[in-house]
Amino acid sequence: MASTVLTDFSHTAERLTDRINEALAAAVEPGAGCPATLAEAIRYSLLAPGKRLRPILVLLAAEACGSHVEDAMPGACAVEMVHAYSLVHDDLPAMDDDDLRRGRPTCHRAFDEATAILAGDALLTLAFETLATRLPDPAIAAECVQILARAAGAAGMVGGQADDLDAARAETLREQFERGETEACLATLESIHRRKTGAMFCASLELGAAVARASSEQTEALLQYGTNLGLAFQIVDDLLDVAGDEAATGKRLGKDSERGKLTYPSLLGIEESRRRAELLIADACAAIQPFGPAAALLESLARFVQRRDR
Amino acid sequence: MASTVLTDFSHTAERLTDRINEALAAAVEPGAGCPATLAEAIRYSLLAPGKRLRPILVLLAAEACGSHVEDAMPGACAVEMVHAYSLVHDDLPAMDDDDLRRGRPTCHRAFDEATAILAGDALLTLAFETLATRLPDPAIAAECVQILARAAGAAGMVGGQADDLDAARAETLREQFERGETEACLATLESIHRRKTGAMFCASLELGAAVARASSEQTEALLQYGTNLGLAFQIVDDLLDVAGDEAATGKRLGKDSERGKLTYPSLLGIEESRRRAELLIADACAAIQPFGPAAALLESLARFVQRRDR
Repeated sequence: MASTVLTDFSHTAERLTDRINEALAAAVEPGAGCPATLAEAIRYSLLAPGKRLRPILVLLAAEACGSHVEDAMPGACAVEMVHAYSLVHDDLPAMDDDDLRRGRPTCHRAFDEATAILAGDALLTLAFETLATRLPDPAIAAECVQILARAAGAAGMVGGQADDLDAARAETLREQFERGETEACLATLESIHRRKTGAMFCASLELGAAVARASSEQTEALLQYGTNLGLAFQIVDDLLDVAGDEAATGKRLGKDSERGKLTYPSLLGIEESRRRAELLIADACAAIQPFGPAAALLESLARFVQRRDR
Repeated sequence: MASTVLTDFSHTAERLTDRINEALAAAVEPGAGCPATLAEAIRYSLLAPGKRLRPILVLLAAEACGSHVEDAMPGACAVEMVHAYSLVHDDLPAMDDDDLRRGRPTCHRAFDEATAILAGDALLTLAFETLATRLPDPAIAAECVQILARAAGAAGMVGGQADDLDAARAETLREQFERGETEACLATLESIHRRKTGAMFCASLELGAAVARASSEQTEALLQYGTNLGLAFQIVDDLLDVAGDEAATGKRLGKDSERGKLTYPSLLGIEESRRRAELLIADACAAIQPFGPAAALLESLARFVQRRDR
């Protein structure tokens, strides 16, 4: 059963990933005015092999609400651009200081720090340009810019990353942990992840819904799916950092414990973390039942997230 | 005559600056979800005293085309947010490595590097959110997002900054200079500045024109004004770096020659640079003659740019 689900999803994901990668490559064709090295760094970061989970969410949400994949492609490209920019900036020495990403040197390692900062800036800017230029209906375009900006900004992804880096907060968290206040720790962790990862998962689904002019009930259901999926994704990410395979994930593992960072496995243990992820995935799938068969692929995607090894 | 022009412009600028500063402060009210330190860094960078030249351009362009200042305010806020973000990122150690900006420690000095990177990211994101959320007509909002993104992105401001940092290009420039190929040097310098500074000047005017639903002739005239003004602004900036007053400019001067950077004064000498700036200002003013008295303030602003000491 599980393997059938994974196979089903793998086929769809492969088909969609090819189309997404084509659209992304077309969006960053080196053009007039962009310096060659910067263009190279942008392509290096955006076109690196990746799961393309967020753009797939955009496309599947749009399809579930009755729209065509092609109509949602600008939204799909935009979320992947924002995701790629966030990885480039998060990997910088002043932030997470990572050397390896998606199996290759991080952008500031392959190029240099200044180029990485600028490539990230350019990708973030390009995301909004893509929405405004490529979505033909200006009302939808403006709505999509709002959705993406709110999710990516200070109260969303950027805020989550700031909290995640906040040494004072890490100290509080550790003290709570040492006093055995597990629930308080979990609440803090969740509030970080809801913004750092969850906001962009939800935005992806909301973008798909906006392009398809979904009803507010449909959008609400997709957001509930996204919130649960995002948190499950993060727990699995933490689990992979403890027990994953560097070759499969393409990044250096064991970083969290090295940095003394509190994670789901360090708070709850591996088994309980797995159980929580399972429950969240079940909740995610329950939220989209009203869509019926139209949401079958979103359901497969959730199962894939639960079982992923990278 | 000159001093009357400056006084006229100073009055208008003061009036507009107050309104711009109010709108900017309102746009970065600390809200739910944004970590306190990040919110502080964003406010520190955006609300620092500044000339507000770009937002004033937005407002004056809109007025010249028959619109109200208040209608163009979201555009004015958005360009200042992009400007502020670009200063924060450009000042980073990996880029221009500056300690002083607008008379105060740069963002990464007052906070830390990670916070400065994230504050810049948040400001850039907020610029697009502001356009999409605060401009009531979605067609105008989508158009403004396009205008701003193109000007700020890889083929615009970010590309100009990348070229400016490019060591290989600096080497070529220096070799050209040593071979006495002044015109080739000037062309290279101009192509950097057209993107690094000029693109955002032009975008400011274009945003004002878009909000006012200006004719293409009006927009074209404003862009010609902006191109000349932007280049003049940069020449004056170079002149201030050589012969300015640190107290007035609020930044460390003499950096260009310290870094062996080619500038207009080092290529042309101080007198000839001044003459070029004057000619560009004259061209800028000529471009907006068709507006008649409606463009009087844009003309005063150009005179102010020529004579500014900060």
